[in-house]
Amino acid sequence: MVQYNIVLIGFGGVNRALAQLVAERNDLWQSELGFRLNIVAVTDLNLGSVISQNGIDPRMLVETKFEKGGFARLSGGSAEADNEKVIRQAPAGIVAEATFTNPQNGEPAVSHCRWALESGKHVVTTNKGPVALAARELVALARRNNVHFEYEGAVMSGTPVIRLAKNTLSGAGLSAFQGVLNGTSNFVLGRMEAGLGFAQAVQEAQALGYAEADPTADVEGYDVRLKVVILANELLGAALKPSDVSCRGISSLTAADIQAAAKDGCRWKLIGSAARRKDGEIEASVAPRRLDLDHPLCAVNGATNAVSFTTDLLGAVTVTGPGAGRVETAYALLSDIIAIHRGSRGSLAKEAA
Amino acid sequence: MVQYNIVLIGFGGVNRALAQLVAERNDLWQSELGFRLNIVAVTDLNLGSVISQNGIDPRMLVETKFEKGGFARLSGGSAEADNEKVIRQAPAGIVAEATFTNPQNGEPAVSHCRWALESGKHVVTTNKGPVALAARELVALARRNNVHFEYEGAVMSGTPVIRLAKNTLSGAGLSAFQGVLNGTSNFVLGRMEAGLGFAQAVQEAQALGYAEADPTADVEGYDVRLKVVILANELLGAALKPSDVSCRGISSLTAADIQAAAKDGCRWKLIGSAARRKDGEIEASVAPRRLDLDHPLCAVNGATNAVSFTTDLLGAVTVTGPGAGRVETAYALLSDIIAIHRGSRGSLAKEAA
Repeated sequence: MVQYNIVLIGFGGVNRALAQLVAERNDLWQSELGFRLNIVAVTDLNLGSVISQNGIDPRMLVETKFEKGGFARLSGGSAEADNEKVIRQAPAGIVAEATFTNPQNGEPAVSHCRWALESGKHVVTTNKGPVALAARELVALARRNNVHFEYEGAVMSGTPVIRLAKNTLSGAGLSAFQGVLNGTSNFVLGRMEAGLGFAQAVQEAQALGYAEADPTADVEGYDVRLKVVILANELLGAALKPSDVSCRGISSLTAADIQAAAKDGCRWKLIGSAARRKDGEIEASVAPRRLDLDHPLCAVNGATNAVSFTTDLLGAVTVTGPGAGRVETAYALLSDIIAIHRGSRGSLAKEAA
Repeated sequence: MVQYNIVLIGFGGVNRALAQLVAERNDLWQSELGFRLNIVAVTDLNLGSVISQNGIDPRMLVETKFEKGGFARLSGGSAEADNEKVIRQAPAGIVAEATFTNPQNGEPAVSHCRWALESGKHVVTTNKGPVALAARELVALARRNNVHFEYEGAVMSGTPVIRLAKNTLSGAGLSAFQGVLNGTSNFVLGRMEAGLGFAQAVQEAQALGYAEADPTADVEGYDVRLKVVILANELLGAALKPSDVSCRGISSLTAADIQAAAKDGCRWKLIGSAARRKDGEIEASVAPRRLDLDHPLCAVNGATNAVSFTTDLLGAVTVTGPGAGRVETAYALLSDIIAIHRGSRGSLAKEAA
């Protein structure tokens, strides 16, 4: 039996959903995927940390109502979270990093990834920060330590965007992509099509829990910009920083703009895109674009996201799926672990062919 | 340098496009993908056959205007095509089968695949016949001989449908799919939306080369049915024969049906689908369906095809791309060869990680 010991860094929605999947699906995974997961440590800024050599009951983790510092109640637990110590010392092969994204410098997630890779552990993450801001360093570090650094969930949750392009479009000549990569702004645009003004639509998104109290990162395009950096660097070989990507959000669009487009059979979408120019440079941007109804991204509505890849041999290939969600993002971590399981670089890896 | 010797069975549009890609891209493939292709034999019902131990110049193959039996002019050539002898004796590791699809029994393509696998050669094919009608036998034969049987191009040309579902959605809990899988019928429906009657729209498709002189297989759903059988068997573990799939085409739709749907903001699409029922059985069908505008397949227009997968953990994930085309289908063969190259089962395989 193959069992991977795993450390969860951050115990918010995503890693909690992963623990729930472990509780419910380990037997299924063993028969379908060839491995089980065993959570041996968890750290969380609020709850503290816990390490157990033999593994922590995932159902207990999910079902217990922990107070601040509550992991101290558990055997091997502490009210404090010394993430470096836990990451370096936990008896695990895989670290699942799902703390919050810090768009300035990616910390502390970058350090979490670094500590894990340095100590010979695979990293799976859904965190845009380290991938957008430090992927080059972290990928090199992973290579030197013969482990994987996997991050499918950094863009469009578990929808296989990175793996679709890297694995199944190899040799097709990928030269550009365009994406609808932010569900909040896409929802807002949809409500504006239905007649609301921008402010009103944002309020509705907030009331429904789609937009945060400060919606700036979503509606001004900063969230999309990080995703564009990730995809451009990963899939087009660029070396972009966020500041290299011109960025305009949807707040400048008026109800009149939206209605005028609708009258012509068009729709406004917030598009993140990058393309290889003739001189080989990668040009990337985030901006609202008026799309014809037959554009592959025009019908991507609500919280759904999509990326359309431009290729030499296939023309446009588009993948559409959930852009967010706890379970959907936890699946991204699972898909990364499957990639580790099937890969050949890591010492833990077994060939699942 | 890794070089795969390859036999082309059938020298129509698809294998001709593959030869053209070999002529143009071998150096690129060597640096990007880690291998080159060397065409060592070609057979064609009309042109004859040719075998060369050292390889045949792909540019010459593509640029020469051959008459019937014209391969006899080439060194190692013959006006006859003894496919069994060529497949068994050619000094090749891979056979690319791209003859026509015979929807009754899959022959002679099934035999081509069988001969290749029996003689220890990998098979890559774009031919629906052997995959829909004999996949189980051929997959088992491939396994026994430690070679690959790959057929991404049997559905939606090079758009990665099979590989998306099998590789990148592992563990997501695939339970059903729905697809727009026939470009001809989709084009006809689009023209009917624009006001044409069924017969008129078919005539236009024929004039543009989208529909054959006898459009039956396309508009009555038989082509889609083969694709549904392939996807249901491959991705949902079914064991369907074409006759197990109920099949209704678009010829019964009237202009009035189409206009009535449009009035309600809906569209008719010819949908091939399969789903796992609660009792575990797979139910599959081909039929025109009236879709709401927010259905993920509603905006799939013209010759574009799409498949939407239903999964437990991600909900709907949809891939949209070309459904046909010479180069697009030749890319499917390349993507199959990449899978062989990266795989570990075949004796020729090298790990490309």
